[in-house]
Amino acid sequence: MLGSGSWGTTFGKILADGGAQVTMWARRPELAHEIAEAKRNSQYLPGINLPRSMTATAHLSEAIDGATQIYLSIPSQTARENLKALRPLIARTDAPIVSLMKGVERRTGLRMSQVIEQELQCDPDRIAVASGPNLALEIAREQPTAAVISSTSLETAEAVARRARNAYFRTFVNTDVIGTEFGGVLKNLIAVAIGIVDGVGYGENTKASIITRGLVEMTDFAVAQGAHPETLQGLAGLGDLIATCQSPLSRNNTAGRLLGQGYKFQDVVKQMQQTAEGLASVAPVLQLAKQAGVSMPIVEQVKRVLDGTMNPREIAPHLTTDDDTPRGERTDYGQAGSGGALRRALQRARDQFRHGGRGAEGDRP
Amino acid sequence: MLGSGSWGTTFGKILADGGAQVTMWARRPELAHEIAEAKRNSQYLPGINLPRSMTATAHLSEAIDGATQIYLSIPSQTARENLKALRPLIARTDAPIVSLMKGVERRTGLRMSQVIEQELQCDPDRIAVASGPNLALEIAREQPTAAVISSTSLETAEAVARRARNAYFRTFVNTDVIGTEFGGVLKNLIAVAIGIVDGVGYGENTKASIITRGLVEMTDFAVAQGAHPETLQGLAGLGDLIATCQSPLSRNNTAGRLLGQGYKFQDVVKQMQQTAEGLASVAPVLQLAKQAGVSMPIVEQVKRVLDGTMNPREIAPHLTTDDDTPRGERTDYGQAGSGGALRRALQRARDQFRHGGRGAEGDRP
Repeated sequence: MLGSGSWGTTFGKILADGGAQVTMWARRPELAHEIAEAKRNSQYLPGINLPRSMTATAHLSEAIDGATQIYLSIPSQTARENLKALRPLIARTDAPIVSLMKGVERRTGLRMSQVIEQELQCDPDRIAVASGPNLALEIAREQPTAAVISSTSLETAEAVARRARNAYFRTFVNTDVIGTEFGGVLKNLIAVAIGIVDGVGYGENTKASIITRGLVEMTDFAVAQGAHPETLQGLAGLGDLIATCQSPLSRNNTAGRLLGQGYKFQDVVKQMQQTAEGLASVAPVLQLAKQAGVSMPIVEQVKRVLDGTMNPREIAPHLTTDDDTPRGERTDYGQAGSGGALRRALQRARDQFRHGGRGAEGDRP
Repeated sequence: MLGSGSWGTTFGKILADGGAQVTMWARRPELAHEIAEAKRNSQYLPGINLPRSMTATAHLSEAIDGATQIYLSIPSQTARENLKALRPLIARTDAPIVSLMKGVERRTGLRMSQVIEQELQCDPDRIAVASGPNLALEIAREQPTAAVISSTSLETAEAVARRARNAYFRTFVNTDVIGTEFGGVLKNLIAVAIGIVDGVGYGENTKASIITRGLVEMTDFAVAQGAHPETLQGLAGLGDLIATCQSPLSRNNTAGRLLGQGYKFQDVVKQMQQTAEGLASVAPVLQLAKQAGVSMPIVEQVKRVLDGTMNPREIAPHLTTDDDTPRGERTDYGQAGSGGALRRALQRARDQFRHGGRGAEGDRP
């Protein structure tokens, strides 16, 4: 396990509790020492006892040596430099590489599995990603959770899923890496919207409406990038979205709540020290959505609140169209654009949704 | 508006705030008087001012006279007797009949629109139902909310949706009455499961996993009864489910929480005075599911907790299969049963889901 933050350490515990021999890699020797000797990670997982079968090292080559599966839980914005160091080491093995990282690289807009593939120059079928409603501390406390392991190779996904499971952690598999990764990115944007609504003081109807309509936007966006809609409706989309929106500790939620209370964007950034992932993704995601002809009214409203051109009290599901004609809940993909990969994705989506008949009457694309 | 409880009165306010002239019917003259004169319903909506354009009567014929739309918000278990009195009155008009009632009739297992059709003996295309994440008091406080109006006639659904909307209440339309009504029934069962998990003390991952997997069960069940899957993924399914699971006032949630804390079923029933809808529906829904060959592992677990044969601490998403083979998240409808209406429903579902390819690998039916 490369990376010994709260999520990496928790996932190492999942693996060890499932029967695996786990070696953690930590950049700082004192952290590696604490995990190996005291079976604790007091900075990132205070109060959690780590399994006996978990050890740790500060030497990358030691961590990789003899590994049958390699897990990555390093900060997404600095992943490339770590991956460069890893490349010569993994050339000796054909162990699956499993990304636990969520987010897109800001500079390139690439998903983490794409960054891994570029830097390690390995077969994409070796790469898997894990996602789902996975608040680290709750899993470290062994509260029952489900997650998704995704790889373009079902064999790889299944091999990882068989390792990454135990009495409190259940893994499902799919082959839709694009949908699985975008779920983990897009939920942050909706979590900001939920935070805004929380800050304004609205209740559960408003939040449930925004989560439901937000999931439609997430699905439309991901499908236009090549994802399967059902991935977004599963643990890596809906599941992660609900957990993130309900977590009072979520950075995105907090940022939204401050905006909802009337703080300006600059004040929020200053107050939070570190930019929330969701705030940073708003502009790039809307840019990609525009290119793909995808409508994301809730994310648009978040942007207008960030820009100071919309009163947070007006963020609401009833504003998702600007006319009074009754409409269905689902986008009719059949009406949207044309050309290339997008057309193929839309075709696939059309096949899946058109059976809804009149019930699937669409919002304008 | 027939019925002046909290939801009927709130929906009357929605209509009046959208520009309609609304006449409420209340069985008790003193309640009709309070609404008409004081513009209050202090028992069911304390602190809420009702619109000037809302009036009220205790005479059914006065309430119906000249109505262009008729809304029903009466207790589902006693609906038949009120409908019998209504039948001669509505024969004079062709106004749409809109059900705001959720639940199935215990004695017959019929949905509310079916009970209405039986008792009023009217064209089903005149009947519409409203559903969604609709906690009455939040809407009465004018917090932004979205909902679904469903009718087998799109024209009827649209006519109702155009009336039942205003600055804080947005309505979408569909023609899937079966899915829209079952969403409002099935969410109660999952809300009990969430309550149990709350009572045990588990956190947001567990709840998000159960909501996500619970939605799959709701969808499988409703599709087997003839619903469209996307209805369950919308406001009447997912939206209502999330709002109900988050509401601390929900009767189903409370019942589950008491069970999760270790109270026996009989104690919970005694303590709550009135049986929670979700508890009463567990056995009949599982019976229908069995007949249709639909697997509902979370609802099964709720039943085992109710029966006292399962420790509530063991209710968890990782128990939704009993072997260790990695599986996809979606049921493969293609493997389930055969025969009649079920086969047609399954065929439609198969058409909708099979494009997921290997990612849609199924749990056993």
